[in-house]
Amino acid sequence: MYEKKIAKDLTCGLNIAIEVIGGKWKANLLANISKGLKRPSELHRSIPRASARMLNQQLSELEFHSIVEKTIFNILPTKVEYALTPGGESIMEVLRAMKSWGERL
Amino acid sequence: MYEKKIAKDLTCGLNIAIEVIGGKWKANLLANISKGLKRPSELHRSIPRASARMLNQQLSELEFHSIVEKTIFNILPTKVEYALTPGGESIMEVLRAMKSWGERL
Repeated sequence: MYEKKIAKDLTCGLNIAIEVIGGKWKANLLANISKGLKRPSELHRSIPRASARMLNQQLSELEFHSIVEKTIFNILPTKVEYALTPGGESIMEVLRAMKSWGERL
Repeated sequence: MYEKKIAKDLTCGLNIAIEVIGGKWKANLLANISKGLKRPSELHRSIPRASARMLNQQLSELEFHSIVEKTIFNILPTKVEYALTPGGESIMEVLRAMKSWGERL
């Protein structure tokens, strides 16, 4: 399911999770993709506080870690869509735990 | 238990959680404090990849959000200890979810 691409010193699971979803907007991106937003433009509009460049970089990092997959449709104009991989689906439980903790605070 | 100090636009629990534990080393700091490390020097040694300045800043942010409390002992040389507040204890469930997710990846 996931080919290790993380530096050896990330020994414990917590560091791996931080490495993979630790970026400022990654949790928001994952939450919005899980709600059905697929296209870069939709994702950019859903997080107005972040620049498109920053969001695209974090999407590539999520893709690098096999958390999201990017599909480029061979049509003009080019169409790109993002979706959660099984690894991405599995992290939703962490995001739900974060969300319910934040709501109880 | 927690006096709201977060900008109004952080409407959902996920954004609150990201705001509070989103810093690069905060999850590690919380995990190490929960393991019994109390003093700044111990915490700095436990996260060698981060500068003392960065860790102290993130400890102050955690203190600001009432996730950790800082005790300064009135003795010479000055002694400082950190401990989790109830809010800090309650976030450990999120860190455990992150850790077990990272280990399953």
